[in-house]
Amino acid sequence: MHIDDPIGRDDLVRLDADDPLAGHREHFDLPEGILYFDGNSLGAQPRRAAARIEQVRAQWRDDLINAWNEHRWIHLPVEMGARIAALVGAGAEDVVVTDSTSVNLFKLVAASLRLRPQRRVIVSERDNFPSNLYMMQGLVELLGRHYELRLAAPGEVHEHLDENVAVVCLTHVNFKTGAMHDLVETTRRIHAAGAIAVWDLSHSAGSVPIDLRAADVDLATGCGYKFLNGGPGAPSFVYVHPRLHDVLAQPLTGWLGHASPFDFSVEYRPAPGVARVLCGTPPILSMASFAAALEIFEDVDMNEVRTKSMRMGDLFVQLVERECAGHGFTIVCPRDAARRGSQVCLGHPEGYRIVRALVDRGVIGDFRAPNVLRFGITPLYQRYVDVWDAVQTLRTVMEEETWRNPVFERKDLVT
Amino acid sequence: MHIDDPIGRDDLVRLDADDPLAGHREHFDLPEGILYFDGNSLGAQPRRAAARIEQVRAQWRDDLINAWNEHRWIHLPVEMGARIAALVGAGAEDVVVTDSTSVNLFKLVAASLRLRPQRRVIVSERDNFPSNLYMMQGLVELLGRHYELRLAAPGEVHEHLDENVAVVCLTHVNFKTGAMHDLVETTRRIHAAGAIAVWDLSHSAGSVPIDLRAADVDLATGCGYKFLNGGPGAPSFVYVHPRLHDVLAQPLTGWLGHASPFDFSVEYRPAPGVARVLCGTPPILSMASFAAALEIFEDVDMNEVRTKSMRMGDLFVQLVERECAGHGFTIVCPRDAARRGSQVCLGHPEGYRIVRALVDRGVIGDFRAPNVLRFGITPLYQRYVDVWDAVQTLRTVMEEETWRNPVFERKDLVT
Repeated sequence: MHIDDPIGRDDLVRLDADDPLAGHREHFDLPEGILYFDGNSLGAQPRRAAARIEQVRAQWRDDLINAWNEHRWIHLPVEMGARIAALVGAGAEDVVVTDSTSVNLFKLVAASLRLRPQRRVIVSERDNFPSNLYMMQGLVELLGRHYELRLAAPGEVHEHLDENVAVVCLTHVNFKTGAMHDLVETTRRIHAAGAIAVWDLSHSAGSVPIDLRAADVDLATGCGYKFLNGGPGAPSFVYVHPRLHDVLAQPLTGWLGHASPFDFSVEYRPAPGVARVLCGTPPILSMASFAAALEIFEDVDMNEVRTKSMRMGDLFVQLVERECAGHGFTIVCPRDAARRGSQVCLGHPEGYRIVRALVDRGVIGDFRAPNVLRFGITPLYQRYVDVWDAVQTLRTVMEEETWRNPVFERKDLVT
Repeated sequence: MHIDDPIGRDDLVRLDADDPLAGHREHFDLPEGILYFDGNSLGAQPRRAAARIEQVRAQWRDDLINAWNEHRWIHLPVEMGARIAALVGAGAEDVVVTDSTSVNLFKLVAASLRLRPQRRVIVSERDNFPSNLYMMQGLVELLGRHYELRLAAPGEVHEHLDENVAVVCLTHVNFKTGAMHDLVETTRRIHAAGAIAVWDLSHSAGSVPIDLRAADVDLATGCGYKFLNGGPGAPSFVYVHPRLHDVLAQPLTGWLGHASPFDFSVEYRPAPGVARVLCGTPPILSMASFAAALEIFEDVDMNEVRTKSMRMGDLFVQLVERECAGHGFTIVCPRDAARRGSQVCLGHPEGYRIVRALVDRGVIGDFRAPNVLRFGITPLYQRYVDVWDAVQTLRTVMEEETWRNPVFERKDLVT
């Protein structure tokens, strides 16, 4: 899309009026007076979450242990998996919901090593999400010195592929820069080197159309509480390609991944299919909220989400360059929308204080060290005009230098 | 305690009238017409859970990402750990809440192997909770053939202790029989063999007084949703002895176990103390319910809980033997209350159908293959008279042979 300068607020109001996704905003319970650009960190609350959480709480109170069967709690990991599958180009039986993304990453990378027993190298990128790197470090340390974690510079994974590489574990959309890998081409290169491709979809599932089957991805996991709006700390999901359903051997072999958990047999026997990645008992109240959130996607066209996301991102970058020129911002995310996930990332040496000054004025983005301001784009509940208003607030913060206020000095916080 | 025969319902009514714990029943939202003897599987709902869940949901809606700091969500694992510590004889800084018990067991057993690098054997009991066995099997398979999982017959762990044993992992109270290990003496023997003692407190925390420091236990984990009433699938807790706080190296090194998670550094550096067992982002809605449940224990004397639990268990056994004589029941749990956890376990070849016939009449116990009827004792919300009424219902089910009704035939269910 190209928008002729000088673009004004009215142009964005018009885009909202024509937005085929505009109706979805009503599915979210958004606080007044806030422009929320942090749905890539914690998605906003779906309206239906409240009733679902309350329903499950009442089921616990009234039916106690029997609720596991009567209300199908025990089936939630599989049923929710089927809904996520539809968003990521997987078969309904290829996905389950379980544990955290970190724990799932450990399972999948360890299982990949089992699939390539003659190879000892795990490849990832230095700027992968740190928890992913830490989990791989923990695995390598556990296994001993014969195993190796090789960290490539961003975009240079292919230079590290050789006959010793068992698995390549990457995040589809970079958490800090928003840069997006070419899922198809990168997976093809990984396979050409004989390695297993493990993808973390935390920053893409629910915001970017994904076709895991078409990309021939082996294994994937992703976050429930970002673009999927599952609620704080919502469990993660796992995808296993059908060709691996019955050969995958992951090490966290808990009872719910057993073929017959309620036989209470002494020997572990993996469940058929993707259910073998399940482990302990899932946190049902958090699952309930996530289950409700997934229903919203039932009639969402992910291509429309992507179109709006790219357009909003382009507008954000364009407006920052025009409205905040001379204030020292750099554009950290790719300018090419096709290579950018659903976030805009700016660089500024005073990024931390600027983000806090924005939050103080109701524009919620977040900061990633050392200097990145992140603005998540969530087309299901954001309006085009929000981009305009956010950039105007940024301009005000810079022109009035409100970020210099000592209350915005660095302190440790989760943003 | 000894109660002169013939004991009658009035005697139990009198015990309730004198019960110093009677007031705690008001803290629970119990369904009408149900006698709940399955709190060892899923604890009943604390009244304060509803408001707390609702509060946290509103915090998510209103404050979005900022709720992590503003409402101290990020501190919940440590703050809840301090409350649990008070129940298990630990220092406030020795316990955190995180992940599932299965996942935590993996962390602790793997970390124990690191603490004894010259040794390759894990010892457990054949009748440990199966998920625990599966996790240890998964770990051994991951590490390769030099490692070994040795399973002892119940109570015969000491016969397997030798200089190759790195870690002994046991469950304090057996899930199926209710038999309780002598925590002090067994830990002493494990240490005498030079091994690390890892205890699963799932069936004892919140029902049996535990003094982890006095017993010199190295590492422990346990369930949040049984006697602690945290809600379905509530996260688990982990105890680390202070001498291991800064040497423990567990393999699931997720970002929240990092010394400075929000620095997003490439290299993992474990947090000081027990926080290094944290991994991914915790499920906050489920944590909220659990946090509310733990407050109930603030003014609970665990010795009073234990006294009432033993008395209720003794009465249950005594009444079954008198009222259900000739119906083929055996007593599976220890008769000696001092060696029994907080559950009564009966054996019967038709156990499955009898449990279902009891449930049909509002007496909720559960079944464990091949033939065990389990009745959890939860002194905070049960009355002595419930024992009388449950046994009378059992007698009716046996005398009227209602369990023969085909609707009670076996089907797969979670009980």
